[in-house]
Amino acid sequence: MQIKDYIRSMGRAARVAARSMARADTGVKNTALRLIAENLSDRRARLAEANEIDLAAARKNKLDAPLLDRLELTPARLEAMADGLTQVANLSDPIGEISEMSYRPTGIQVGRMRVPLGVVGIIYESRPNVTADAAGLCIKSGNATILRGGSEALHSNLAIAECIRDGLHGAGLPGNAVQVVETTDRAAVGELLALEEYIDVIIPRGGKGLIERVSNEAKMPLIKHLDGICHVYIDAHADIDKAVAVAYNAKTQRYGTCCTMECLLVAEPVARTALERLGPMYKAAGVEIRGDEAARKILPEIKAATDEDYFTEYLGPIMSLKVVSGPDEAMEHIERYGSRHTDAIVTEDLGRAKRFLAEVDSSSVLVNASTRFADGYEYGLGAEIGISTDKFHARGPVGLEGLTSRKFIVIGDGHIRK
Amino acid sequence: MQIKDYIRSMGRAARVAARSMARADTGVKNTALRLIAENLSDRRARLAEANEIDLAAARKNKLDAPLLDRLELTPARLEAMADGLTQVANLSDPIGEISEMSYRPTGIQVGRMRVPLGVVGIIYESRPNVTADAAGLCIKSGNATILRGGSEALHSNLAIAECIRDGLHGAGLPGNAVQVVETTDRAAVGELLALEEYIDVIIPRGGKGLIERVSNEAKMPLIKHLDGICHVYIDAHADIDKAVAVAYNAKTQRYGTCCTMECLLVAEPVARTALERLGPMYKAAGVEIRGDEAARKILPEIKAATDEDYFTEYLGPIMSLKVVSGPDEAMEHIERYGSRHTDAIVTEDLGRAKRFLAEVDSSSVLVNASTRFADGYEYGLGAEIGISTDKFHARGPVGLEGLTSRKFIVIGDGHIRK
Repeated sequence: MQIKDYIRSMGRAARVAARSMARADTGVKNTALRLIAENLSDRRARLAEANEIDLAAARKNKLDAPLLDRLELTPARLEAMADGLTQVANLSDPIGEISEMSYRPTGIQVGRMRVPLGVVGIIYESRPNVTADAAGLCIKSGNATILRGGSEALHSNLAIAECIRDGLHGAGLPGNAVQVVETTDRAAVGELLALEEYIDVIIPRGGKGLIERVSNEAKMPLIKHLDGICHVYIDAHADIDKAVAVAYNAKTQRYGTCCTMECLLVAEPVARTALERLGPMYKAAGVEIRGDEAARKILPEIKAATDEDYFTEYLGPIMSLKVVSGPDEAMEHIERYGSRHTDAIVTEDLGRAKRFLAEVDSSSVLVNASTRFADGYEYGLGAEIGISTDKFHARGPVGLEGLTSRKFIVIGDGHIRK
Repeated sequence: MQIKDYIRSMGRAARVAARSMARADTGVKNTALRLIAENLSDRRARLAEANEIDLAAARKNKLDAPLLDRLELTPARLEAMADGLTQVANLSDPIGEISEMSYRPTGIQVGRMRVPLGVVGIIYESRPNVTADAAGLCIKSGNATILRGGSEALHSNLAIAECIRDGLHGAGLPGNAVQVVETTDRAAVGELLALEEYIDVIIPRGGKGLIERVSNEAKMPLIKHLDGICHVYIDAHADIDKAVAVAYNAKTQRYGTCCTMECLLVAEPVARTALERLGPMYKAAGVEIRGDEAARKILPEIKAATDEDYFTEYLGPIMSLKVVSGPDEAMEHIERYGSRHTDAIVTEDLGRAKRFLAEVDSSSVLVNASTRFADGYEYGLGAEIGISTDKFHARGPVGLEGLTSRKFIVIGDGHIRK
């Protein structure tokens, strides 16, 4: 079969399955999720075997160490996948939720009902755990999904897909509700991105290259996440103990995540007090600081920051630093250099906290808390399918709700329009 | 100035104005809306004069009668424009609304804040009233907007834009919050659609040709409305009086709107009873019916429907008709031939009503009420900027809420992630 026909036939099958998924009872969906979690636990050996085929090929192809690490399905990761599905089963079902139902002067009742988007396409890179995580969220939200993982993880993904299909069948749901693209042909991605007739939304998960390609080519709407150039701004009215704790945690709690702080902004009146404490702490943690001239007067040993530094998402133990005059300059800096992902202010001043919350145009805006809180688990969404830096539809960590839409429903009793 | 530079400079100016609009107080925005309404009333003579230039050119260019009609700014239409703005001023302000604020186990408070989208681009055809209506909704929702109306309405649109700019200035808001493209060069549309850096969402309003062009070319997300192929399904458990009232009203209350019924589906057990009453009523109203074989056995004088008929949005006194076996066949027909706009069931059976509401994948689904209710005013949104047949972001009539997004906000007290 031609690749185009193959992908189209997956799309058609997904559309049919989506109808059953949209109707599926909460209990049935939860049963499927629990069965899949059981399958993942019971078939550990089979999954490790499939994963070993991928790992061997990757080693042979001399993939670099971080890629090999991401590819590996360790026992802990398998358990985390199964746990994740059980957690999604325990979340409340968003589908069918009716809200804002009220009578209009004409006598009709108007409200809104939450329904699935339909078919969700997900294109991702080497982590095979995305297969189970994404499938779980799509099942719970009543969507069908087509998954296209990295070719280096194909055997792992197919083994996981088998656990999923058997779980769906066990619960009486269509196996085509979750389909994994079974070819490593790169043309498959292009065909998926052109399948607007059958795919309602596409979610790319991976590096910048992948996301840019998908953004440029996709004919359907996207939920996507680009850079996370996140800031902490220490205001002149900050409690310095809180400021030091937040700024240190935001950078060092984990380096590689998108909500890690990349740039620290400090108000001039408290710059010396804050930086004389933070400088040695960052140094001890092995963080390289690149600062502006004012910062280097306080911390003479740090490097000078270039304009490019302020535009950089380091995703590692490097950070930029700038002394600013106050909230206005801080917000201007965030507007110019930030990526509208996650930004925090540390202040005890209510007016400044309110302004920062209202005016900083990012998907998460925090007051007196570390940027590292910006994820679906910490926000109570239960799980996330990604973090959206777009403003349209879903913004910030995307959980079940982002995979749904709301339609209007009207109840009358023979009402006609005059 | 080159057209490209001109449009880019508008984009930059809109982005700057959007920041002021996002911060603007509710009272200030309402003052601007009321001043614009006053300007539209006070400057009736000036507006009529500008409109007459457009009308004279249109007559000279032999534009057809419906187009001329849409172009005309009658005193009643001017009053409606002013009234619309006053109504928008009276709506509650969605911006800054905080919801779902709750404590997480870590001690942080997480919630969501409603904020503007930023810059809204609107591309529309001959009706100059869209200029005021769209500007009003964008101002209230804290967005900046760039409006590109039809070239045949340029003088009318510029005269309205003057009323808007003066109103914005009078309230202390930036005049660039609402900009009208001042050239009739068609290249302007292409430049707008490529301006993803400055325009956050584009809304095309007009015929199918315009919407398809915008869909194909736009680099940014869209709120769009395509066909309205709307159905009424009379179930075997319907109250026939209600069914007759709803089916008659849904077709004849107004022919040219997108929520007008285009196809009537009747369950076989009640087909004769319903159609023997409805047939003569439609005939008396001058509605041409095109039916399937079973329908023509009951109403022998009607034409035969082709498959094409069921795909057609007549927007006039023509309708298709089909006798179906029950809800399943009705829903399959709607799935196949409908446009996911607005569909209604007439039934007294709770289970069937529930199924229809849950399973029909349309932006509005009604029970025992005419499809003609599907608009922003009837739903209590106050005004609408369009009706979206997409599932992503906004669905159904789009009012102020569709022009906003929600970001996450977090309040801590020096909280760090463990």
